[in-house]
Amino acid sequence: MFDTTTPAAPVVPTRGRLRPLGLDEVSITGGFWGERQAVNGSATLAHIESRLESEGWLPNFDLAAAGSLPAGRRGREFSDSEIYKYLEALAWEIGRTDAGADDDLERRFRRIVERVGAAQEPDGYLDTMFGRAGQDERWTALQWGHELYCLGHLFQAAVARIRTRPEADDGLIDIARRAADLVCREFGADGRDAICGHSEVEVGLAELGRALGERRYIDQAALFVERHGRGSLGEIEWGRSYFQDDVSVRDAEALRGHAVRANYLASGATDVAVERDDAALLDALRGQWDRTVERRTYVTGGQGSHHQDEAFGDDWELPPDRAYSETCAGIGSVMFSWRLLLATGEAQYADLIERTLFNVVATSPGSDGRSFFYANTLHQRTPGIPADPDATSPRASSSLRAPWFEVSCCPPNVARTFASLAAYVATADDDGVQLHQYAPAQVRTSLPDGRAVAFDVATGYPVDGTIRITVVEDAEFVLTLRVPSWASGAALRVTTGAGVSEEPVLPGTVAVERAFRVGDVVELVLPLVARVSTPDPMIDAVRGCVVVERGPEVWALESVDFGADVAEAVVAGDPVEVEGRVALPLRRRSSGDVATVPLVPYHDWAQRGPSTMRVWVPTV
Amino acid sequence: MFDTTTPAAPVVPTRGRLRPLGLDEVSITGGFWGERQAVNGSATLAHIESRLESEGWLPNFDLAAAGSLPAGRRGREFSDSEIYKYLEALAWEIGRTDAGADDDLERRFRRIVERVGAAQEPDGYLDTMFGRAGQDERWTALQWGHELYCLGHLFQAAVARIRTRPEADDGLIDIARRAADLVCREFGADGRDAICGHSEVEVGLAELGRALGERRYIDQAALFVERHGRGSLGEIEWGRSYFQDDVSVRDAEALRGHAVRANYLASGATDVAVERDDAALLDALRGQWDRTVERRTYVTGGQGSHHQDEAFGDDWELPPDRAYSETCAGIGSVMFSWRLLLATGEAQYADLIERTLFNVVATSPGSDGRSFFYANTLHQRTPGIPADPDATSPRASSSLRAPWFEVSCCPPNVARTFASLAAYVATADDDGVQLHQYAPAQVRTSLPDGRAVAFDVATGYPVDGTIRITVVEDAEFVLTLRVPSWASGAALRVTTGAGVSEEPVLPGTVAVERAFRVGDVVELVLPLVARVSTPDPMIDAVRGCVVVERGPEVWALESVDFGADVAEAVVAGDPVEVEGRVALPLRRRSSGDVATVPLVPYHDWAQRGPSTMRVWVPTV
Repeated sequence: MFDTTTPAAPVVPTRGRLRPLGLDEVSITGGFWGERQAVNGSATLAHIESRLESEGWLPNFDLAAAGSLPAGRRGREFSDSEIYKYLEALAWEIGRTDAGADDDLERRFRRIVERVGAAQEPDGYLDTMFGRAGQDERWTALQWGHELYCLGHLFQAAVARIRTRPEADDGLIDIARRAADLVCREFGADGRDAICGHSEVEVGLAELGRALGERRYIDQAALFVERHGRGSLGEIEWGRSYFQDDVSVRDAEALRGHAVRANYLASGATDVAVERDDAALLDALRGQWDRTVERRTYVTGGQGSHHQDEAFGDDWELPPDRAYSETCAGIGSVMFSWRLLLATGEAQYADLIERTLFNVVATSPGSDGRSFFYANTLHQRTPGIPADPDATSPRASSSLRAPWFEVSCCPPNVARTFASLAAYVATADDDGVQLHQYAPAQVRTSLPDGRAVAFDVATGYPVDGTIRITVVEDAEFVLTLRVPSWASGAALRVTTGAGVSEEPVLPGTVAVERAFRVGDVVELVLPLVARVSTPDPMIDAVRGCVVVERGPEVWALESVDFGADVAEAVVAGDPVEVEGRVALPLRRRSSGDVATVPLVPYHDWAQRGPSTMRVWVPTV
Repeated sequence: MFDTTTPAAPVVPTRGRLRPLGLDEVSITGGFWGERQAVNGSATLAHIESRLESEGWLPNFDLAAAGSLPAGRRGREFSDSEIYKYLEALAWEIGRTDAGADDDLERRFRRIVERVGAAQEPDGYLDTMFGRAGQDERWTALQWGHELYCLGHLFQAAVARIRTRPEADDGLIDIARRAADLVCREFGADGRDAICGHSEVEVGLAELGRALGERRYIDQAALFVERHGRGSLGEIEWGRSYFQDDVSVRDAEALRGHAVRANYLASGATDVAVERDDAALLDALRGQWDRTVERRTYVTGGQGSHHQDEAFGDDWELPPDRAYSETCAGIGSVMFSWRLLLATGEAQYADLIERTLFNVVATSPGSDGRSFFYANTLHQRTPGIPADPDATSPRASSSLRAPWFEVSCCPPNVARTFASLAAYVATADDDGVQLHQYAPAQVRTSLPDGRAVAFDVATGYPVDGTIRITVVEDAEFVLTLRVPSWASGAALRVTTGAGVSEEPVLPGTVAVERAFRVGDVVELVLPLVARVSTPDPMIDAVRGCVVVERGPEVWALESVDFGADVAEAVVAGDPVEVEGRVALPLRRRSSGDVATVPLVPYHDWAQRGPSTMRVWVPTV
C-alpha cells in the first residue's frame, strides 16, 4: 500500500491510516523548533556525552569488555539505556544534518558503538549490570533490573541507524539483532513467561521488527504486551499498577501507575495492535487515551501526579503544586499519541502532541541546552536553589534546571526527540499530505502513484498565527491542515493564479484539494489571542482558579514579574497583550493593590533565577 | 518546687509552668477515650505481640542471643523499636490497670524484657541489625540505620517502667541505663560528632535522665539537638531537611522534612530547653510550632503533606487527597504540644492536642483495635480494596485499615499513647489543677503544700457538650478549665451549697477559685453544634470548599451515605442534625438532585466497607 522506500522516522507501521514522512522528506528550517534543534545539536549532545563519560556509565562498557566488572561499575541498573538513547539521538542528528562519514558526529557514533559492541557476550546478551561473577544472574531481577528496558532502547537506537544510514557498517544493527534474537529465545512462547518491570522492550522490538522485516520480533513484543496484568512481577508498596501489571492491556480503562512505563507500554501495544490488525486491542488503547486525557492529564499535557511513584493519580487528581509531570512521561505521551494518529488520522492526537511538545518537552531544557527539568511542576511555592553546574542533582527538588541527575533519563530523551522532531510534522496518504505541527519547514515527498509533493512552510508560530504554505512543484494532491482545538475563529486563505479565496474553518482538519501550481499559497490563520480557561469542576486542586493560554502555549505567572510571591496573586481582570507578552491584571492578597503583570510562556519559566511560579491563578 | 513523688507520666520536667498528673492521679473511667483504652487493652496489645512474633521482629532478639545473626534476621532496620514501643505500651497498661505481679500483662512484659536483655552485648550495645560478622559495623550507617532511634524508644519504655513499677526487678531499667551510658561514651562531647537520621534518642535520653536523675543523659540529648543543621548526615534526594539537618534547631522557622522526625526532634529539644532553662531555644520552638500550626497543619491536626518523603510540604501546601498525615506524626505532634503546654501553660497547645487526638490518633485504629490507618488522607478518591487480615500491607494504599504494615510504627505508637492517655488529661501547679482534655475521669492528687484535690468528671463529650465536675473532698484550690478555641458561646455553671451561678466564658481558660466542699459541682457547657469552616485563602488545594466540624470532631462525607462517589458532591445548604448525626444538604454535580446527607465523624470513616470520602466539600 505504501511506497517501499522506508522513511527516516522512528515509527513506520506497515499499515494504518497515515504514512509518516521522515527526516529525508521533512526538514524544520527555523523558528521555535528549529532553534531548539540547533541548540540540541550544538550544545546538548556534547553535554550528554561528556556526562555519560564522567559519570562512568559509558566506561561501564569498557569494564565489561575488559572482564573486570563488577568492580568499578557506576550508575543505576538502567544506566546502559542512556547510552542507547544518546546513540539514537546521534543517529537522528546524523540523518537530520546529513553528516558525512568524516563528520565528527559520525566518528563519535562509531566510537561508542564499538565500545558497546565489545561488551556484548557471545550469545548476544548485553548489560553491564548482570550475569557476571559477583553480579546478579541474568533475568533474575525483572522487577527492578531493567535489562529488557535497556535492550528496548538499544533496539530504538538501531532503528534510527537503519532508517538514516541503512548501509552503515558500524555494527550497531548486528548488535541489536543478536540481542533481539536472544530475547526471543529466552522469552518466547516456550521460554520464560515473564515481563520487564519497565516497559520499553515492546516498543523497541516492534519497531526493530518493522525495520528489519522480522515478524518474530513483533510477535515477541505482542507476547510481552499480553503478559501484562497477571501480577508476575509481584507486589510492591505502590501496587502492581506501577508496572501496569494489575490489569491486562485489553481490559484497562485508563493509563495508570508509573507514567513513563504506562506510555511506553501503550506505545508498544499500539504497534502490536496495528501490525497484527487487532482492532479490539486498538480500541482498548484509544479508550484508555480518551480517559487519560480527560481525567489524568494536566493543562500542559503533562502526565503523572505523584512524586512518590512517578505515577498517574486517580481520575481528577491533578494537583498543580505536586505535579510530577516527568519530561520522559511527556515524551512517552507523544510516542503514544503519534502512533494513534498514524493508525486513525484523528486530529485530537496531534492536538495533544502539540500541547505536550510546547509545554512539557520544550520546558525541560533551558535555553543553553545544558540544563533540564526532570519534573515539570505547575506551581512552584518556594524559589529554588541554583543547581551546581558541576554536580549531579536529585530528580525534582528545585525551581531551576539542573545539568544532570542521578536518574538521568530525561536529557537524552529530550535529545533524541528534538533530533527526530521533523518526523512528527507531516504524514501522507494515497491522496496527499497532512500537516500536523506548524514550523518553518520544507516538505518534499512523493505519493504512492509517483506524484511529487513539494512545499515550503513559513510561519512565526507560535508567536504569530499565520501558517503560509507555498507550493514549489506542480501537482494535484490534497493538502490537509490541522486546525487546533483551541482555534475558534480560524480562517483559510488560498491564493492561486486564479485569485484569492478565504473561508472560516472549524477546529479539526481542513483539506484543500486542487491541482497546485508552483507559487500557489495556502494560508491558515490561527487566532493567537490570550484566552482564559477554567478547569473541569471535577478537578479539586484548581477549583476557583483560571489559566491563561495563547495558541498552543500555556502561560505562567512568575514572582520575578509579579514583584512578590505568587501565593499573593488573585486575578483582577482579563488578560491583555503588552509589548508582545500576555499580561494579567492581578490583585495582591495582602495589600489589595492591583497591577497588570506580564506572564511568561510556561516553557520559558525559571530562566531568570529563582522564582515562585504558578500556572493556575486564583480568582478568589 | 514540685512534690518529690514522681507522677506516672511519660513527661515529667523538673521545671515549667505546669506539673503533669500521672496515671496514679488521673484515670479515665469511660466514654470516648475509655472505650478506646479498653479495646487497646483487650485487643490491640495482644494483636501487636502476635505480629511482633510472627513477623520475626521479636525472634530477632533470640537469634542475637544465640549468636546466629545475621542469618534469619527479618524486618527493617528499625524493627527493634517496635518491641520497645510495645514494652512501653505494656508498662503503661500495667500501671493503668494496676496489674499485679501474677497478671498476664506483667508476665508477658517480663518475658519480653528477658529476651531483649539476652541480646544486649557486654558493653551495653543493643541492636539486632548491626555490629556482628556479616552485618554493617556499629554506628557506620547513621543516615538510615536507626540504631540511636531504636535506643530512644528503649529509653522511653524504661521510663514508663520506672514511673509505673519503680521497684520492679525485671532488668529493663538496667538494660536502658547500660545502653544510655554507651551512647554517652560513644557520642559525648569527646566522642563521635554525629546524629541519628531519625530523631528519637534526644527525647528518650532526656526523659531517662529525668527519670533516673542522670544529668549526663540530658546533656547528651542537648548535644544531639545542637548537632542538627550541619549536614553531617549527608545529602539525599529529598534534601537535608528530611532529617532536620538543614538548619539548626535554634534557627529553623517551622517544622519541616519528615514529619515524625521533625516532631520527635522538637519534643526532645523542648525537653532540653526546659531542663537547661534555655529561653532562646524554647522561644525558637514555640515560633516553629506557631508557623507549623498556621501553615502546615491539616484541619484534622494531621501533619505531613507528602507521600514521597512522609514530609511537611511548603507553607500552605495542604492537599487533602495526597495528605499523608501519618498517625505517628500526629502522635509526635501531641508529644511536642504537650511539652510546650507543660512549659508555658497556654491553652492553644491543649487545643491542638485535642484536635489531633480526635481526628488523627483516634482515626487510625478501627473499632476492633486490630486494624490501623498508617496515613490519614482527608480525601479518598477510589474505594479501597479490603486488606487481607493475615497479610502485611504497604503503608498507605487503601481506604480500609490494615492489620499490619511492612513499616509498622503506627500500631504500637497508638497502643502506647492510648495506654498512657490519662497522663494528658490534667496538670497541677502550686494553686490548683488544670483540666485540658474532657473525658469521664477521676482526679486524685495533692498540691505541693499537701492540700488534697479530688474530683470526678462526668461527660458525654464529644457527643454532649456538658462537662460536669463534682468535688469529692473538701479543699480550697483553683480549678482551671480549658475552653476550646471553637467554643464560642460556652458557659460556666457553679453549683454549691450557696446556690447556682452561671456566666458566659470565652475561649482560652476559665478558673474557679474557691473553698470547694464535697458535692460542689462545676459545669462547663460547650456549644456542640455543627459549624461550617472555610479554609485560609492561602491554601490552594481546598479553595472553594468548606469543612463541617462539631466540637473537636471533623466530620466527613462518605459515599456509603451519599449514595454516589463523593466527587459528585456540592454543598447546597447549612448543616443540620438528624438523629444524632450531622447532615449536610448536597447537590449531585451530574444530576442536580439535592438531598440532605448524613456525615460521619472523620475518626469513624471507612468502618462500613470500601467508600470514597472527603472532608473538604466543594461549594461550587
